[in-house]
Amino acid sequence: MNTGTIVFDGIEYPDGNASDPNALGLMQGSPPPLAKRIRFEDDRYLDFPQIRWSLSHMRELVPTAAVWRGNGGASEFGVTTRDSEARIDALTFDDLQGQRHTWAAALAHTYTDGIIVLHRGARVYERYFGALQPQRPHACFSITKSYAATLAATLIHERILDEGKAVAHYLPEMAATAYQDATLRHLLDMQVGVDYGEDYADPQAHIWDYARAGGLRARRPDYAGPGNYYEYLLTLRKAGDHGTAFEYKTVNTEVLCWIMKRVTGISLAEMLSERIWSRIGCEEDGYLAVDSIGVAMGGGGLNSSLRDLCRFGELMRCEGTWRGKQVIPAEVVADIRRGSDPMKFAKAGYTLLSGYSYRNMWWVSHNQLGVFEGRGIHGQRLYIAPRAEIVIARFCSHPIATSAANDPVTLPAFEALCHLLRSG
Amino acid sequence: MNTGTIVFDGIEYPDGNASDPNALGLMQGSPPPLAKRIRFEDDRYLDFPQIRWSLSHMRELVPTAAVWRGNGGASEFGVTTRDSEARIDALTFDDLQGQRHTWAAALAHTYTDGIIVLHRGARVYERYFGALQPQRPHACFSITKSYAATLAATLIHERILDEGKAVAHYLPEMAATAYQDATLRHLLDMQVGVDYGEDYADPQAHIWDYARAGGLRARRPDYAGPGNYYEYLLTLRKAGDHGTAFEYKTVNTEVLCWIMKRVTGISLAEMLSERIWSRIGCEEDGYLAVDSIGVAMGGGGLNSSLRDLCRFGELMRCEGTWRGKQVIPAEVVADIRRGSDPMKFAKAGYTLLSGYSYRNMWWVSHNQLGVFEGRGIHGQRLYIAPRAEIVIARFCSHPIATSAANDPVTLPAFEALCHLLRSG
Repeated sequence: MNTGTIVFDGIEYPDGNASDPNALGLMQGSPPPLAKRIRFEDDRYLDFPQIRWSLSHMRELVPTAAVWRGNGGASEFGVTTRDSEARIDALTFDDLQGQRHTWAAALAHTYTDGIIVLHRGARVYERYFGALQPQRPHACFSITKSYAATLAATLIHERILDEGKAVAHYLPEMAATAYQDATLRHLLDMQVGVDYGEDYADPQAHIWDYARAGGLRARRPDYAGPGNYYEYLLTLRKAGDHGTAFEYKTVNTEVLCWIMKRVTGISLAEMLSERIWSRIGCEEDGYLAVDSIGVAMGGGGLNSSLRDLCRFGELMRCEGTWRGKQVIPAEVVADIRRGSDPMKFAKAGYTLLSGYSYRNMWWVSHNQLGVFEGRGIHGQRLYIAPRAEIVIARFCSHPIATSAANDPVTLPAFEALCHLLRSG
Repeated sequence: MNTGTIVFDGIEYPDGNASDPNALGLMQGSPPPLAKRIRFEDDRYLDFPQIRWSLSHMRELVPTAAVWRGNGGASEFGVTTRDSEARIDALTFDDLQGQRHTWAAALAHTYTDGIIVLHRGARVYERYFGALQPQRPHACFSITKSYAATLAATLIHERILDEGKAVAHYLPEMAATAYQDATLRHLLDMQVGVDYGEDYADPQAHIWDYARAGGLRARRPDYAGPGNYYEYLLTLRKAGDHGTAFEYKTVNTEVLCWIMKRVTGISLAEMLSERIWSRIGCEEDGYLAVDSIGVAMGGGGLNSSLRDLCRFGELMRCEGTWRGKQVIPAEVVADIRRGSDPMKFAKAGYTLLSGYSYRNMWWVSHNQLGVFEGRGIHGQRLYIAPRAEIVIARFCSHPIATSAANDPVTLPAFEALCHLLRSG
């Protein structure tokens, strides 16, 4: 196995092969040696290289609620062949810095834990590395948002929710917050003016207060902050206007999920089970990280097996139908694919995502392949290219949170794969 | 639905129907009202009535590791009929205080969350109450020990472990503890002289220190005690001799599990999956509560669906075979059924369990029906009556931990059922 390094922001990191968590002995032994232990209370489980183990073992670190797969049995999508996998492994492409990679070598470069490619609904590639196994759920991070907002858009389609209504209509206790006059549509497209920052590289960013409130980061013994997600959301104040610009803020998803729960009485875990997992033949239970009062982190707490993530991508590629049954309304999927206003998106300054928009918590490329994506920190990706009839589900444990750290390789790799498979 | 009360130690409690957690609204609402919240940090999740919700939601309170069911699909054991269920519901029996009950009414009296009866391998009765559902794992508490020790006895049978060797042979760091010269056989039959108490009604009992070390009870901000199970076990000192009397101490199981992990390198969760769950067609993943370094609580941390618990009972009834395949060695099961020395058991003073012994962490009745049992606090029971060809799996959330609180009803109820079904 070749090992190497990557460099980001001037810092050199051992690559995916060189930081394999099994080879490093992370959490091995009885007990694991002190230097190999990953404990929630040390608050370093998302640091590198610990993250290479942690993202496949989230339930061993925090409380979780099951997303039941139902009792219908797993759906099939064929088995890969050596020929098809070898052909993909040998694919070469240039990254956005002009460096040439093979597909196979790029997997270690992006700290890939697992990746599946479906072409016309058939599995043509599947790989697992490090701590991940086919049956083991992995952190989806913000791909959770795409699941949650697809459900919210479905509830709007069913007239259970009204996208024009303000948050305070559903949650009167939020009237004193930034969300008082933000509509569900503002939430869904992340166009809310709220004083909240999400720079993962900044230890003082609001995202960490939010995670600490929800029990995803350790608390000091003298912690006196919000005790759960809802308490944290009640502290958020307005900054700027709603509806003018795309501003990516995880708390918007949390408010959306709170509304879904308030109106339906159904938890996110149950809704994902009833409306997605059990309808598309998921083969493993998923799970959601929950806070101290049992509320799931709708903005990033989902863990799914790679195959089940891939099934969701295939459902979305097929306009919400699964083996002839409409599971998500076709209009909901079409609305996502149409995207929102790229001009509002451009204000956020994602230089690698030129021409994109953000709709119902999906990233919409507006490119020739019709690509739309679920994206999560540290390299999580659900990539759907309808015009190439391709779905790629990928889990990573990249040292750097922001997608900008892997997009220079990921974007051209996935596009090159689409062209390879389209060419037959 | 009839509601009533039970009295134990002079205190009156609302019965199972009157304390239904759904009717009480426990953990309902978004957020649940303060009085209806069950938070781990409040350290009251095992109090009554909170326990009526908690035992079906353990993973939402503490970190857990999955016991994977494998990918073989669920095994069948038939469906119940209304006739068979009505006949059982109408069964009457006298409890040990001479009070008459119907089977159906006794379910609320024992705070039953779920119960399944198999007769000759076919399901003849199945009921769920309160927070439990067929797919939802429930706390097994000390039935965990019967699983773990059946695996340990299997490893002894395979000569991977030696029951005559002392603990310190496998765990040199335990040489300074009570376990230095205790053998695996002493552990398996709970005949270890160790200064450790397990009176659940005493808030100062060692069991709570042990639970706190393992992360199953909340810690005060100034907590400076052991940080995990192994650290706690290293503190245990000798009291009395080994091998002379049965003394029920959960820490013995924990030491046994530590040895299994040290010798095999396989975690308890993986071993349960490989050697039991995946071999008998379990339909749901189970899970184990884990401590801060990922070590499962082998003495009581298992959660299983009721049906999967029942499958394990049926496996043991059938001498370790499952649909023609030997899963657990027949000699291991025969050894359990032969029991150990009832004279040593009698010294422990279990007045309701006259004539019993304890072997490989199973409770062996030595009665006419050949009954042997897995038993867990708050009413958990796996009851196997080979000569009646009956298995009963039952989950409860009884207000009182000790089995002595429900045995006066449970023992005659189960025996009456055996006689009813045997009579055809």
